[in-house]
Parts: sequence; C-alpha cells; structure tokens
Amino acid sequence: MSEPIKKGNIAQAPTPHNTPASVSGSYLKNAPLPTIPSTIKEDDELRKKLLANPAILSMIEGKLNTLVGTDSGYVKALPPKIKNRLYGLKALQQKQFKLEAEFQMELLNLEKKYHEKHRPIFEKRKKLVTGLVEPAPEEIEEGQALMGEEEDEEDEADETKTEIDESLKDVKGVPSFWLTAMENLGPIAELITDRDSEALNHLIDIRLEYFDALGFRLVFEFEENDYFTNRELVKTYYYQKELGYSRDFVYDHAEGCDIKWKDNDHNLTITVEKRKQRNKHTKQVRTIEKLTAVDSFFNFFNPPQPPKSKKEDEDQDEDEEEEQEEEDLEQRLQLDYEIGELFKDKLLPRAIDWFTGQALEYEYDDGEEEEYEEDYEEDEEDSEADETDADDDSEEESSGQAGTAKAQQPAECKQQ
Amino acid sequence: MSEPIKKGNIAQAPTPHNTPASVSGSYLKNAPLPTIPSTIKEDDELRKKLLANPAILSMIEGKLNTLVGTDSGYVKALPPKIKNRLYGLKALQQKQFKLEAEFQMELLNLEKKYHEKHRPIFEKRKKLVTGLVEPAPEEIEEGQALMGEEEDEEDEADETKTEIDESLKDVKGVPSFWLTAMENLGPIAELITDRDSEALNHLIDIRLEYFDALGFRLVFEFEENDYFTNRELVKTYYYQKELGYSRDFVYDHAEGCDIKWKDNDHNLTITVEKRKQRNKHTKQVRTIEKLTAVDSFFNFFNPPQPPKSKKEDEDQDEDEEEEQEEEDLEQRLQLDYEIGELFKDKLLPRAIDWFTGQALEYEYDDGEEEEYEEDYEEDEEDSEADETDADDDSEEESSGQAGTAKAQQPAECKQQ
Repeated sequence: MSEPIKKGNIAQAPTPHNTPASVSGSYLKNAPLPTIPSTIKEDDELRKKLLANPAILSMIEGKLNTLVGTDSGYVKALPPKIKNRLYGLKALQQKQFKLEAEFQMELLNLEKKYHEKHRPIFEKRKKLVTGLVEPAPEEIEEGQALMGEEEDEEDEADETKTEIDESLKDVKGVPSFWLTAMENLGPIAELITDRDSEALNHLIDIRLEYFDALGFRLVFEFEENDYFTNRELVKTYYYQKELGYSRDFVYDHAEGCDIKWKDNDHNLTITVEKRKQRNKHTKQVRTIEKLTAVDSFFNFFNPPQPPKSKKEDEDQDEDEEEEQEEEDLEQRLQLDYEIGELFKDKLLPRAIDWFTGQALEYEYDDGEEEEYEEDYEEDEEDSEADETDADDDSEEESSGQAGTAKAQQPAECKQQ
Repeated sequence: MSEPIKKGNIAQAPTPHNTPASVSGSYLKNAPLPTIPSTIKEDDELRKKLLANPAILSMIEGKLNTLVGTDSGYVKALPPKIKNRLYGLKALQQKQFKLEAEFQMELLNLEKKYHEKHRPIFEKRKKLVTGLVEPAPEEIEEGQALMGEEEDEEDEADETKTEIDESLKDVKGVPSFWLTAMENLGPIAELITDRDSEALNHLIDIRLEYFDALGFRLVFEFEENDYFTNRELVKTYYYQKELGYSRDFVYDHAEGCDIKWKDNDHNLTITVEKRKQRNKHTKQVRTIEKLTAVDSFFNFFNPPQPPKSKKEDEDQDEDEEEEQEEEDLEQRLQLDYEIGELFKDKLLPRAIDWFTGQALEYEYDDGEEEEYEEDYEEDEEDSEADETDADDDSEEESSGQAGTAKAQQPAECKQQ
C-alpha cells in the first residue's frame, strides 16, 4: 500500500458548512465503530471504561495498514533464512488489507440497508414525541407491560402515590423528551449548561443519516425557538478511506454547521457583558458589548479540526508548548468523536430508555452505574456559580449567564 | 418478546467434548463482538482499558432485550396521557429488536463469507511457519520493505550487528512462531507457564472456524510432542440466540476438549509429587503420587461453566460466601471470554506482528504499551520461585514443577 501516514497527518481542515438533511432518519449500527479512549477526564472512571476501546485509537490516530518496523532483538538474531520467512509472512499479511477493506465496505452497506429498515420506527417515534400521533391502546398495554412490572410492585408496597404534575396535562407529545434522554447520558450531559437546556427543550428529533461518502451524520431537528432560526443543526463525521490497524474505519474529521443565532443575547456559545460608559464631557452614555466564548453543548456544531499533516522530522523539533497544544487538540478531537458515537450507538437506538433512565441499568453493571450518579453530584456543585444579575443600577451591567451545571431531570418543562 | 432472562440464567453447562476440526481456518472479523470489562486484575490498567467495553457486559451477563422497568420519579409524576405516550414509545422500541437480530445474523454471515476469502492466506501462513513452503524473492523484498525501514536506519547508526544464532540455521519454518506471538499479548502471556512453553513450542497453527450454530471455534494444531496425543486442541464459544441490550451477541458458554496427556508427568495442568514410602516391617518401598491442579495455559481447554439458572428470589437469600463464589466464577468466565476474543480479534489476524512485537505499537498508544511492558517485569519476579529439585536423596522426592513465569522471548527454540 501507499506511504504510511503518521499520527497527525490528517487532511486539511475543511470549512464547516450547514448540510441540510431532508430525509427523516432512522438507525441501526452495531458496535464496529467504536468509542474513545479515556484521557479525557481523569476522575471519570466510568467514562474511561465506557470509552476505552483499542479500536478507537486507530480511528483517532489515523494509523495505517502499512507497518513501519521496529524489530525486536530476537528477530535480529535470527538467521537470514528464517528472517526471510518472516518477511514472507509480513508480505502475506499485507494481502489481508484489501479483503478487510472490502469487508468494512460491505458492513457499512449492511448498516445502511438496516438503517432504511428502521426508518418507519424512528419516524413514528418522532410523531409520538411531538404529539402528531397518539399510541394505540394495544401499544400502551404492551409498553406498560414492558416498562411497568416493577413499578406496579412498588406501588403496591408503598401507598404514597406520586403527585401528578397537572401543569403538563395538556402538553402535546412528550415534553423535554430529547433533553431528558441526553441528560441521562453522562458525557453528553456534561456538555449541557442551564442556558442550553432551554434551547434543547425545543428539540423535536435527533436522527442518524448516512450519505455517499464514508461517515455518518447526526441531524438535530428543532421547533421554532427564541435562540436560532435553523430548523436543523447538523454534525457530520467523515472516515478515512484506509482502515486502521484494527480493521476499523478511522475518523478523518467532523464538520458542524453555522448556527444562525437570533441575537447575541440568545447565542448560547458566548456571554455578552454590556458596559455602559458615560462620556465625562458630553455625559452621553454608550453601551459596549464584550463577547466571551463559553462552554455550551452548541459548540458541538463547531468541532475542533485535526492538525494539518506534519513531517516526522518536524515532530521531533517541536517544543513542549506545541506538544501540549497538540495533546489538548487530540483530547478535544477524541471527545468530539466520542460524543458523536454516543449519540449514534447509544442514545438514538434506545432514546425512550435514556429518557426514563432504564438504559443506565442495562448498559452498565451496578458499580459503573453508580459512578455515573456520582458524576452528577459533583457537577451540580458548579451550578451555584450560575447567577444572573442583569439590570444592575451601576454603570456596568451584565446580562451574561454561562452555567455549566445541568438539570438531572427537567423539573419544569419549558416546551409548549 | 418472551420472558426476560435474569442475570445468571444461562443454560445448563454442557459436557465438554473434543470437536475435531477438519477445515483449515482463516479469519476476518471486525469489532462487533467485543472484549471484556476489567474487574479481572486490579493492577492491570492496560487490560482494563483494552477490555473495557460496555457491549461485553451484556455478553457476559446475558442481559436481554426485554426491559424490566424501574422508572424514575419524573416519569411517575407525568400525567397519564404523557405516560401512555412513553408506553407507546417503549412498545415501538420493541419493534427494533427483530430488525437488530436480523442485522446481526447478516453480519455473522458476512463474517463467515470473508472468513472463507481469507482462508488461502492463512493456509499459506501455516505453510510458511512450518517450512512447507519458502517465500518467493519478491515476497521477501516486499515484507522487508514493510518491516525493515527503521531496522536499516538503526544498522547504519550503530555498527554493532546483532550476532546471528547459528543453532537455528537449519531449522525449518519459523521456530516458536505461535508461542512468541502469544507471549507478546499480555493477558494471554500471563497464562503461559515455563512448562507450558515447551509444549506450546509444538504449536504449528491456530485458526478460527465458524460452524452452523452461533459462535466460533479456535483450533490449536500441534505437531507430535511428548505431552499429549491430540493433534488438535479445540475451544468453542457459543452465543445466545437473543441479542444483548447493546445489540450484540451474548456469550452462552464455552466448551473445551479432553487433552490426552501421555502421562501424569507430562500433564501440564497438574503437578505430581512422588513420595516413596518404606514399609517399616517388610522394608518394601512403594511410590505414592500426589496430584495437584496448577495454573496452566492448557486449562483454557477446560473452561469454567456458567451457573445454572436461578430464580430472582433465591438470589436474594444467598449468603456472602455464595455471592463471593458467584463473583469469582463470573470473573473466570469473563477472563475466558476475553482470552478467546484476544485470539480471534487480535492474535490470529496479525500473528506476524505479534511475533515481532510490532502489533504492540500499532494496537496501543505509547502510554498503554509501556504498561504492557511493566506487566511483564512484575511477572518475571515470580519465576524465581520456579525451581526443580527432583532426585533428592530423602524419602520424599518431588518431580513437580509449576512455574507461573513466562519467557518474554524464547531464548532457545525447542521446535525441531
């Protein structure tokens, strides 16, 4: 095969663009496109476990089939005849790569085929979530049987019935469906700020789409809202043409889309600090806006771009600072790929279970599930820093609000 | 779907049997049958990372599609209309399972198809390893180019050429090929004792086979040796018919085979302690053999069996000791499935790279690779305890030897 591509040699970052997705999506995909290793957050053991997967390493690092050798001393000490047999074995192994690539292409096509087969199911999900259709009585009965066994038992045990939230009585569909599901999936929940929640309450569908190139696309469909005019926000992941060493596709890069924020105050990826300045001579007041980039789930649509290709020699010359930067970028890339895979492989196929929280039970064993919960509590402490103090009388007036906390369950449902 | 199967409800353990495998194997399989979570050994961080994969949890625990609900308070507080929509969504999700099972069956068939396509490559590998064929000059050249780039550079840098081991000059094929490859794959290497190494030097092929039922089979082919008469040792893994929650196959159980040891002294899974007893009256000497089960790679062919199904109620009554036993068994099952997958997904498709050690570089990033090496050093300390003191003059004579250490590279090659 061709030149070995070194770590970091990934095609130049393309310009992000908004990819309109007209097809209503569906989903199926097994596990061959794996999750992410776990350098992301030291204290998040579950994430480590959840995301550690050797296959993803090759996806991230763009490692190639072609092997650059560093042989062991043992191999060196072998007589030439035996060494030649090793070379023969190596050449033979090279023949596998073509077959492996064929296999992966067939697998991707199989996934696309089943994606189509799932489409009606996910279209109906959207209709149920948005209230366009109501479930049939037999569907209610079936779902209740599936979901309710233990619920009934509990109800018998303690007679204290939970009070029904009457304010939701006339709400169409399932309020906060996608936001609630996302908030039960740890690594995704961590990205959602309080401000984000309000906007994410307007999510009416998330779907997976495939396209002609290698990769997949996540389409987030919104109802009309105060924040942006886009009805769809799209994130697209591209794979490299060549497989990684573990015979999986390797990520090439991701593309987001331009979010058309209605105004700076509703742009969730920045805070706006307004300062009123009074001219000492004219006494005229002017307002200066200071924009600061802040954490937000919506930065998901402005993904980090892999570094341009670099020669090995340059690699060796780089100083510590550059190395640190490169490492940071790599971590951000990993997180971005990880989040995409969590949507694709976890959240979208089992959205109702993520909404109710049942998915947590089924995805992980008890020990790990607990770690998820711990994670939440830690994060909640952050939320105290999250205060709004607009309309101050002073000459400086802040309307910024950049919470990093997340609501575990949306207490009030802002939809409708 | 049918009744939910609880954790631990796995079909009764079948009797192990020797499955003769007449077909010469080949390989291809992507990552959908995942590795194992990491409760196995606390200090083995790499293994943790390597094996942590949420999908395997369902494979081990036999979790099923059917969901037994524990709902959140949030769900309880929803008005009946909205709850009904959730039940509708749950019933809708249930429709996916049939499609997902169809997909997995098609995927398995795709794997089998590519397994056949790979067959000639792996048949030729066996011939090269055993010396039945020699590589063609152009194959040598190609393999050298693939493997040797850095080797050449190094040779130029330091003029001290490694001395060739002349004793291997006339050896056929590649001596210790499979043993060396296995010893570079940490979790497998840990199972190999010094005594095992001698027998594993007679491995001439390892191959993957599929069969009509759901699962796969590993066939270890040996040349004639002093240890056992079997020419093939076979390990078979069976999946459950129903997929796990993560849409993957779930392990049902594994079967090994009877190893026909030539005699107790050559049975690597036991130690024989011979005691000579002299009758005080007749002065006649008789020899008593005390057999003790010991660690050995060959226990791989006598896998642990999953517990019989148990009712939930019984589960709650069990005492701590039973719980501990169950946990131990679960860990041994996990390790057994893990080892099978490492052979299938890592070692067999890249055997030459595991032989040279290059696979370590390509599979893991630098940090993790080091951990592998550390792992080795720790283990080597154990080897000092591994001494033979046969032919003692005393009335007790021990011919047992049960090393737990492993040779990192076989210094001497016992093959031929």
